[in-house]
Amino acid sequence: METVLEGLLTTVAVDGETTRPARLVEAMRYAALGGGKRLRPVLVMETAALFGRTDDGVCIAAAALEFIHCYSLVHDDLPAMDDDDMRRGRPTVHKAFDEATAILAGDSLLTFAFDAIAHDSVHVDPLVRLRLSRELARAAGMGGMAGGQMLDLESEGRERSEQDIRTLQAMKTGALLRYACRAGAILADASEQDIDRLTRFGEIIGLAFQLADDLLDVEATPEMTGKATGKDAEAGKATLVGLLGVEATRTEISRLLAEAQEILSPFGEKAETLSAIAAFIAHRDH
Amino acid sequence: METVLEGLLTTVAVDGETTRPARLVEAMRYAALGGGKRLRPVLVMETAALFGRTDDGVCIAAAALEFIHCYSLVHDDLPAMDDDDMRRGRPTVHKAFDEATAILAGDSLLTFAFDAIAHDSVHVDPLVRLRLSRELARAAGMGGMAGGQMLDLESEGRERSEQDIRTLQAMKTGALLRYACRAGAILADASEQDIDRLTRFGEIIGLAFQLADDLLDVEATPEMTGKATGKDAEAGKATLVGLLGVEATRTEISRLLAEAQEILSPFGEKAETLSAIAAFIAHRDH
Repeated sequence: METVLEGLLTTVAVDGETTRPARLVEAMRYAALGGGKRLRPVLVMETAALFGRTDDGVCIAAAALEFIHCYSLVHDDLPAMDDDDMRRGRPTVHKAFDEATAILAGDSLLTFAFDAIAHDSVHVDPLVRLRLSRELARAAGMGGMAGGQMLDLESEGRERSEQDIRTLQAMKTGALLRYACRAGAILADASEQDIDRLTRFGEIIGLAFQLADDLLDVEATPEMTGKATGKDAEAGKATLVGLLGVEATRTEISRLLAEAQEILSPFGEKAETLSAIAAFIAHRDH
Repeated sequence: METVLEGLLTTVAVDGETTRPARLVEAMRYAALGGGKRLRPVLVMETAALFGRTDDGVCIAAAALEFIHCYSLVHDDLPAMDDDDMRRGRPTVHKAFDEATAILAGDSLLTFAFDAIAHDSVHVDPLVRLRLSRELARAAGMGGMAGGQMLDLESEGRERSEQDIRTLQAMKTGALLRYACRAGAILADASEQDIDRLTRFGEIIGLAFQLADDLLDVEATPEMTGKATGKDAEAGKATLVGLLGVEATRTEISRLLAEAQEILSPFGEKAETLSAIAAFIAHRDH
């Protein structure tokens, strides 16, 4: 994955471009090549592999999604948003560069994702490439991730119902994880029924991921996560852990994990890696 | 055009979306429906009309480009970028709302453009829709508009050669205008030769537009333009007007206008509107 991300970000200016400013590309590389779990691209690739597709085109589609994720981190970290100085154990983009560069690097990563997803090798059928592109826009946009970040900012210092928090999380974190699993199935020409199954799998691990993340924010130290912790409580943000309590949250995570495994069971051994990822998400401690 | 832009931004959450947060949509509408010349979408529609295509699908493609333009204005106006409080005679988005909302509204307009451009009605051939989407990403991204804004920020207080300024302007302002004319020709199934002609037309009016804009910044008052003027000199930004002088700039604008009319001449009367637009750009005083 690193090689694919780096390869896409080292191409010199292509047809239709003039030149790619060095400092901008440097900031984009800093944002995209800075490690991280690569959870979303791995989900795309593993889901596609479930249906027998493992070629480079899948990696490019997976990279497009990772660019979207990386852009969102750059913008979310900005002073006007979550105001984070550290990410993955090193300065955030606006700290390592400056705010204007961080805004433009985020914009450019977001834009570049729609160049990558349209690549010929992503799928032989242009209608499938268009479907992937359009669904990516919806997962990332006002009705998905960006909308979820808006709801999250609005929730600071306010009472929120459990349903409101679940909607927020389904959008902010869930939409891209849902897309990752859905896109993998679409890339590999899975049946609409199987696409729906994997979509539900993506939704479930999205929820488990967010619950585990909320638990970490309550329980972990900055040394464990490489970023500031306790920020939700500090910002007065309502979380499910706050409403349900730690133990009930753990119970729900286990229930979700079981449901995820149930969804994967018809796929047998081919789903072993996805099953392990679900378990990793549910039980991660960093 | 207003109706199409408004229609696209009033759709309730569609397939693949959860909900569209009201405040975010409000900020997007404020940014996109706030008037302006609509130069880019008009160029798309007039170029397509040149080759006989005038249906709603063209308007949707034109709206996608306008969303990109509007997002760029929202982000460029941010305090960390050009720090403008006024735009089109009213407060900029981060002043009317707040910085976080402005960042997310810009991100969401950018993302939504790639939903719109993939609309079935844009072109019957999915390969053409993909081409338009991918070229839009390149015109808007690191090798186009966003890259140009990066170069512009870097040029503050520095000596720049004429060539550097021309590259910057070809990217920051030129890339979308070039795309507008190119996209119109592509939408209407023009020959590759005609697409190239209209691409050159777009490049020329992009340059004329920027020169006229630089002249306005030197000569106009805030009352005339609805925004702050004299900002380039204040920010120490090198412009072609600064290097060439006002008279030589006027001469170049006239030369460009003549070249644009020459390119349009084989199209005869069908090109009258485009010809008028070129003249308007070259001689606008607000």
